[in-house]
Amino acid sequence: MIGIGAGDPDQLTVQAIREIEQARVFFVLDKGAAKRDLVALREGILDTYGRDYRVVHAKDPERDRRPADYRAAVADWHRLRVALYTQLIRDELPEDGHGAFLVWGDPALYDSTITLVEAVAQQVEIEYSVVPGISSASTLAARHRIPLNRIGEPVQLTTGRQLAEGLPGDAVVLLDANCTFREYYGEDLEIFWGAYLGTPDEILLSGPLAEVGPEIERLRAEARAEKGWIMDTYLLRSRS
Amino acid sequence: MIGIGAGDPDQLTVQAIREIEQARVFFVLDKGAAKRDLVALREGILDTYGRDYRVVHAKDPERDRRPADYRAAVADWHRLRVALYTQLIRDELPEDGHGAFLVWGDPALYDSTITLVEAVAQQVEIEYSVVPGISSASTLAARHRIPLNRIGEPVQLTTGRQLAEGLPGDAVVLLDANCTFREYYGEDLEIFWGAYLGTPDEILLSGPLAEVGPEIERLRAEARAEKGWIMDTYLLRSRS
Repeated sequence: MIGIGAGDPDQLTVQAIREIEQARVFFVLDKGAAKRDLVALREGILDTYGRDYRVVHAKDPERDRRPADYRAAVADWHRLRVALYTQLIRDELPEDGHGAFLVWGDPALYDSTITLVEAVAQQVEIEYSVVPGISSASTLAARHRIPLNRIGEPVQLTTGRQLAEGLPGDAVVLLDANCTFREYYGEDLEIFWGAYLGTPDEILLSGPLAEVGPEIERLRAEARAEKGWIMDTYLLRSRS
Repeated sequence: MIGIGAGDPDQLTVQAIREIEQARVFFVLDKGAAKRDLVALREGILDTYGRDYRVVHAKDPERDRRPADYRAAVADWHRLRVALYTQLIRDELPEDGHGAFLVWGDPALYDSTITLVEAVAQQVEIEYSVVPGISSASTLAARHRIPLNRIGEPVQLTTGRQLAEGLPGDAVVLLDANCTFREYYGEDLEIFWGAYLGTPDEILLSGPLAEVGPEIERLRAEARAEKGWIMDTYLLRSRS
C-alpha cells in the first residue's frame, strides 16, 4: 500500500516512487464519475513512474450512504470488499507477483486499505508493507503555513460525523460532506479550510468561523456542482 | 521550511528534493551531542541533493527543561530564538537569497519552525513557504501496518505532558521523555511503539500495554544510554 500524497504528484516520496517502479500490478478502485479526476491523477503517476505494469480495475461494492446503523453498514461493506479483493488478488496476481494499491494521502488516516489488505492476507498468502504518504491534514497546514497544534497542546483528527456530536477542542476534520462546522457559528472559533489540496483546483480560505464559514459553504457548493465532486479538510480551533 | 520525514532520507518527497536543490543557504540548529546523529543524517541529505549550497550553523538558546511555568518558559525561549534567527537571516542571507530550514518529520506537528519563521518575517522582509513532510506518526503507523484511527473514530495527537493529565481516547503520543504510558498499566489498553523510526536503529514493539509497557521502558532506557539520545512515538488505544 503506497501513500501517494494529497493530490500533487510531487508529494510522492522517493520510497513511494521506488515501490511504484517495482510493482507490476496496480489494483485501482473505480468509484464512479465523481472521482474520475482522481483516477486520471493516479494514471499520470503511473505513466511517469510505473515500469512494465498493468492496471487491474475493480469496482467497490455499493455502500449504503445513509444507513440506520453506521457501524454495521461499514462492517457489511468491509466483508464484501474483502471477498472481492481476495478473489482479485487470487486471479490477477501471479505466484510471487508484486502488486500495489495507490492510496491518496496517508494510508494511516481515514482510509480502509490497510484493514482491507490485513483481512485479505488471512484468506490468501501475501506479504505486504505500507509506505506512508503526505496526508491532506499535513498539506492543509503547509498551504496555510500553520502548525496543526498549538505549542504543547493536543489536536484531534476527526470526522464530520464526530464533530456533529460535539467540539473536541482544536480539531482537524476530514470526511465532512455536510459542512458540520456551521453548527459552531455561535462559538469563538477560527477555521483553516482547503479543498482539492495539492491540485491545480486548490481552494484555501481561513478566518473567524462566523465570518468565513458561510463563504466556505457557498464556495464548496459551487465547486462541487462545477466539478461533480469535492474533497476538503479543515482545522477548527478556538480563537483564544 | 522543508519537511524531510521521520529519519529515512527516502521519505523525502519530490517537492522537498526540488526545494533543497534550489536553496543556497541552509540554517542548521546544533542541539548538542545528543542529536549529532540527526545532524549527520541531515548532512547526508544535503550531500545527496544540495547544489552549490552552504550551511549556516546556529546554536539554539538554552532552554529551561524543568520550568515552574512551562508556557512562560517556552514563550521566553521563543523570543530569544526569533531575535537570533532574525539576526542570522539578516547577516547570512543575501538580498534575494534563497534559504531553507530542514525540519524532521512534518513541520505541522510539534515543531516550532513555522511559528519561528512567521515571527521572523515580521522583523525582516522575507517570503516563505512550507513543504509538508512524512511525520513520525505516519511512519509509526506504516511500520506497524495499522491505521491511526479506528473506522470513523477520532484520534488525538498529543504529548506526554498532556497524557499525564488524562487519557483522551485513542491517542498518538509525541515528545514523551517520561514513559507516561506507564501511568495507564491498570487500564485495558494496547500500545504500538516505535523509536528511531525510519532509521537503521528503528525499534518497534506492540501489544497489550500492561504486558509490553515494562519491556518498552527497559528497551528505551537501554537504547537511550547506548546512543545518548532517543526519539520515540506511540499509539495508545483501548483494546475493545
